[in-house]
Amino acid sequence: MSGRLTVVGLGPGGDRFLTPEAREALEGAEALYGYGPYIDRIPVREGQARNPSGNRVEGTRAQTALAQAAEGAHVAMVSGGDPGVFAMAAAVCGEIEVGPEAWRTLDLRIVPGITAMLAVAAKAGAPLGHDFCAISLSDNLKPWEVIEQRLDAAATGGFVIAFYNPISTARPWQLGQAFARLGRHLSPDTPVIFGRAVGRDDEAITVTALEKAGDTPADMATLIIVGSPETRVIPRDGKAPLVYTPRMAATVNA
Amino acid sequence: MSGRLTVVGLGPGGDRFLTPEAREALEGAEALYGYGPYIDRIPVREGQARNPSGNRVEGTRAQTALAQAAEGAHVAMVSGGDPGVFAMAAAVCGEIEVGPEAWRTLDLRIVPGITAMLAVAAKAGAPLGHDFCAISLSDNLKPWEVIEQRLDAAATGGFVIAFYNPISTARPWQLGQAFARLGRHLSPDTPVIFGRAVGRDDEAITVTALEKAGDTPADMATLIIVGSPETRVIPRDGKAPLVYTPRMAATVNA
Repeated sequence: MSGRLTVVGLGPGGDRFLTPEAREALEGAEALYGYGPYIDRIPVREGQARNPSGNRVEGTRAQTALAQAAEGAHVAMVSGGDPGVFAMAAAVCGEIEVGPEAWRTLDLRIVPGITAMLAVAAKAGAPLGHDFCAISLSDNLKPWEVIEQRLDAAATGGFVIAFYNPISTARPWQLGQAFARLGRHLSPDTPVIFGRAVGRDDEAITVTALEKAGDTPADMATLIIVGSPETRVIPRDGKAPLVYTPRMAATVNA
Repeated sequence: MSGRLTVVGLGPGGDRFLTPEAREALEGAEALYGYGPYIDRIPVREGQARNPSGNRVEGTRAQTALAQAAEGAHVAMVSGGDPGVFAMAAAVCGEIEVGPEAWRTLDLRIVPGITAMLAVAAKAGAPLGHDFCAISLSDNLKPWEVIEQRLDAAATGGFVIAFYNPISTARPWQLGQAFARLGRHLSPDTPVIFGRAVGRDDEAITVTALEKAGDTPADMATLIIVGSPETRVIPRDGKAPLVYTPRMAATVNA
């Protein structure tokens, strides 16, 4: 039998974002690998092995899954959101590049998923309606200076900015520093959206302004969107405001 | 009865990316609005009105759908890909902002979808594995100078770049100009991915280099991803190469 590794995006939260392609890939797998909480979202199936692991062992997890697939098994590696956005697809490719030759010819499939930025944007309105970027605020894998340089480039370029991995107990100050850095280029009233646990029952969306963004609680389950100079907030009676960025660009902040 | 407008992302291509949430929203609608080819993707249902329109009437389409929802109907507006990425969600929000007060209190829901950039990335490997941005190359809605400024910002900031709306018969030179502009900052061998009709039976992925990218055919059904200085290409015997951007940032091009 010829082996296969499928890297599957579950989307954020529960099952409502799970695509038919992702569902089929999960049903057809003999073994599942992934971060524990993502494995927990998948129904137990007879004959399907479950291999949960911690959130700091991406390299080892990818190696183990690749090795099992190279032996002929159908293996699925699961990611929350989209596997190609700050997630397992790049880790798997990295191990393929440095691993045994057999890994390169393996049947590798990557199944996209709804990434958190799209789900949070949909809840808030259409803040990503024009040019935008996604930045991971984790400085575990890149120097903080690179992050600051990208914040400058994104803000002066007029991009809407989505922050992934905004804050953790080991990285407590970076988010506040990022807001301060953006404050050099953007107006204090630039809209900022905090989306927490989107797609889950306890999801929460908060709309605030850049000058007050540092006061809003955030954690690793939070995705943050910072508007561009063109992003607008529409107040609505008895409803959360609608945040959107017009498709028509008027000016840029540079 | 209380009206509702749901803006639904169909994902790219066929049904394999249609989420359960999107499917439910389509099933529950009394009337569908959208660009003709997207409406064509939805099965005909008894009692469900279909209102296809052209691809240059987003404002009118949004107004008509909002007006019908405000009268009490359950209306679905469909978008290919994700409705929040260069698509109908921002157009709907724009009409709500300037329209009758009743439109602001309408039950508006936006259902995210797999956007083309994620589907093309998944086919190629993990090119969006690190910080990235999305730029529409259409200068119908913004001056070309703004696009060039954003290309400069994205390339000098070390972002991977996805191009939406890369080229059309009315905009024949912009894509070549964009590649040339990026060539000021990026190495000639920077990987470039062309993904055409992804998710459809005739989907095609081409991997080339920035210096040769202008020679690759593209049209409005093409999504292009230009790598960063860190993006890597893994050759594979008898298979398309794998393109990925490592999560670990080494350097930036500035």
